[in-house]
Amino acid sequence: MTQSNTFQFQQLFARHSADMPSWGANKRGKYDFAIAYPDPASLPLTDLLASLQTALHEEGQNLALYLPSAGYLPLREFLAAKLARDRNIQVTADDLVLTAGAGQALHMVIETLIDPGDVVLTEDFTYSGTLYQMRRFRANVRGVACDHEGLLPDALEAMIKKVKAEGRQPKLIYVVPTFQNPKGGTMSLERRKALLAFAQKYNLPILEDDCYVDLRYDGQDLPSLRALDDTGLVIYVGSFSKTIAPGMRLGYMTASRELLARALPAKSGGAVNLFAAFAVHRYAVNHLASHIEEITDIQRAKRDAMVAGLETHFAGAATWTKPEGGLSLWVTLPAGIDVAALRPKILEIYDVGYSPGNNFAPDSISGKNCLRLSFGYNTPAEIQEGMGRLAEALRCEGGLA
Amino acid sequence: MTQSNTFQFQQLFARHSADMPSWGANKRGKYDFAIAYPDPASLPLTDLLASLQTALHEEGQNLALYLPSAGYLPLREFLAAKLARDRNIQVTADDLVLTAGAGQALHMVIETLIDPGDVVLTEDFTYSGTLYQMRRFRANVRGVACDHEGLLPDALEAMIKKVKAEGRQPKLIYVVPTFQNPKGGTMSLERRKALLAFAQKYNLPILEDDCYVDLRYDGQDLPSLRALDDTGLVIYVGSFSKTIAPGMRLGYMTASRELLARALPAKSGGAVNLFAAFAVHRYAVNHLASHIEEITDIQRAKRDAMVAGLETHFAGAATWTKPEGGLSLWVTLPAGIDVAALRPKILEIYDVGYSPGNNFAPDSISGKNCLRLSFGYNTPAEIQEGMGRLAEALRCEGGLA
Repeated sequence: MTQSNTFQFQQLFARHSADMPSWGANKRGKYDFAIAYPDPASLPLTDLLASLQTALHEEGQNLALYLPSAGYLPLREFLAAKLARDRNIQVTADDLVLTAGAGQALHMVIETLIDPGDVVLTEDFTYSGTLYQMRRFRANVRGVACDHEGLLPDALEAMIKKVKAEGRQPKLIYVVPTFQNPKGGTMSLERRKALLAFAQKYNLPILEDDCYVDLRYDGQDLPSLRALDDTGLVIYVGSFSKTIAPGMRLGYMTASRELLARALPAKSGGAVNLFAAFAVHRYAVNHLASHIEEITDIQRAKRDAMVAGLETHFAGAATWTKPEGGLSLWVTLPAGIDVAALRPKILEIYDVGYSPGNNFAPDSISGKNCLRLSFGYNTPAEIQEGMGRLAEALRCEGGLA
Repeated sequence: MTQSNTFQFQQLFARHSADMPSWGANKRGKYDFAIAYPDPASLPLTDLLASLQTALHEEGQNLALYLPSAGYLPLREFLAAKLARDRNIQVTADDLVLTAGAGQALHMVIETLIDPGDVVLTEDFTYSGTLYQMRRFRANVRGVACDHEGLLPDALEAMIKKVKAEGRQPKLIYVVPTFQNPKGGTMSLERRKALLAFAQKYNLPILEDDCYVDLRYDGQDLPSLRALDDTGLVIYVGSFSKTIAPGMRLGYMTASRELLARALPAKSGGAVNLFAAFAVHRYAVNHLASHIEEITDIQRAKRDAMVAGLETHFAGAATWTKPEGGLSLWVTLPAGIDVAALRPKILEIYDVGYSPGNNFAPDSISGKNCLRLSFGYNTPAEIQEGMGRLAEALRCEGGLA
């Protein structure tokens, strides 16, 4: 029956339910620097399919089952070995929970720890997906000043004291220490140690988002906060989205079992997709390390193409970061240029997409003269072309010098 | 670094976070009647793999993208056509949201509508996964008396009046009208119309769980509540878990756009798994209708084997339902036999798994002399053997006559 839809839900919604647009994709530009996608041409489709075929042959009938919500055990075992080898994180499969992308892990932690009004401390600009979840649970998010080495210790302690002086207790620190999203910097070892010292002093858990760590183009790995901590206060989140594909929807987290046990009921939809976990497990065991080497070379060339494009088209008119890894860099334009307002027009006329800086601002307002540009999706030639278009757009429409 | 785990989270957990065990699998018996699994031997593994291969060839590079959280459009379009054809539900792809199994849809609706203490009305015994979500959001769940045709209209109205007399407003009615979980009955057309009339009179939305409707072995289809309603008060949930496989983690919901828009932010992990959605979409377009015919024949034989086993081993000592479809039936033993207490021992010694009736009771206590037996997983021969073992177990351990 076609509905007249006379029924009104408005008065029935729960007080805690979120009256906000859902988190999803916008219209995309041909030159799509808005989202941190991996390289589409090098997705390992053939190997994923063959890996799935092997798994279905070996244990396909287990698709008939409902798994415990921590998810497919062999993939958790693989991750325990990978984290030990790559990040010096010593955990077992029982300390790991698979999630539908890192986003689900971030959601679970935030739902588990945040009451309305609780204060969360973040870098001055931070991942928009995490901000979305924090807002959904009505956190009071405070950005802390950073330099190129990460959170400034003095600013962090001053913020903690300010929050306490308001009669509040900071509840959580969220950071992306390696190839920070959105600005691209990497927190120095000294700053990591200082951050941990403050967290221990003030009894503050840290949510460490390490989703980009496998994509390093220059420089040396630094230890994760989780590896530096011996108290159990770090909740560590990672993902296969940037190393295999977002469409596999596979992320993970490890934390103290006390925290995991409380967070698991917030996991919606049961165990992660077993069909995808089958493929990713066999693929990761056999191919992931060499695939990461391959895509690291590809993405380094894209980063270099974007930096070269910026030097060609923006020298003297803007500044930008040159990240040692990850999929995004950060451009700062002169104050007064509002890239948030310009975004729809530049997308429409110039076919160039970007993320306005204020998308990553705890106050939603700061950074309107900044852009996050992600270089993972387009080819190097397209990136150079797109940088020219973006410069032209900002000069014609935005008053860039 | 190995952690000393001195950090204590206990004082930091959000007030709304749920201190309850996560929803997951228990130890399984060889004779596993505890969970409503589909038939493992007839899972269409080869066709799913070929379907995925086609999709990866056609659009595999889109795995690099993040989709809007309603999920893969072609699969929503397929579902709109299927619901129109099979259930006379007239909706478009924009009225549908894909979810990680029906469980995620049920969670989203409950989170969106239920404040702590809100009253939800259900059948006298109802799906344990939904009860889990209702408890997580601290609903006050009231079971309404049923007979073999479903909710008793007089009992429903009396319950609504009782709740109102307490100064509360019932917030939601949750029902599984077709092949009810756990009892197996199907709500008659007259009762469906009566339920809708009460819902409209009292301005009460209905959450209709239609996950089993495709598995009909006898009798005629009845219209869904959603098809009978023209006001928009019915939220309709379905799943591919019973027709393809739970491991694909694909369910769906349709409701008024007002409700969907508010529920989408509660969806964790972004769009459903695209890798699995690729496979299910191509598979469903080409094979689902014939596969349902095939598995319906297989499951009918299993139901018949279980009913025959009950007649052989329990005649005169128990009563049971004979569902026209679905994957479970309901056995009532004499009062005083506590199958909840006996479960671990019967699983350990007799290798037989079942779900105690109180798992499905809003009060967690009623129905300890009842069992839900699911017949989807084992072969007919195993089912008959398992019925013998169960009868022996209940006679030796539980005092069954």
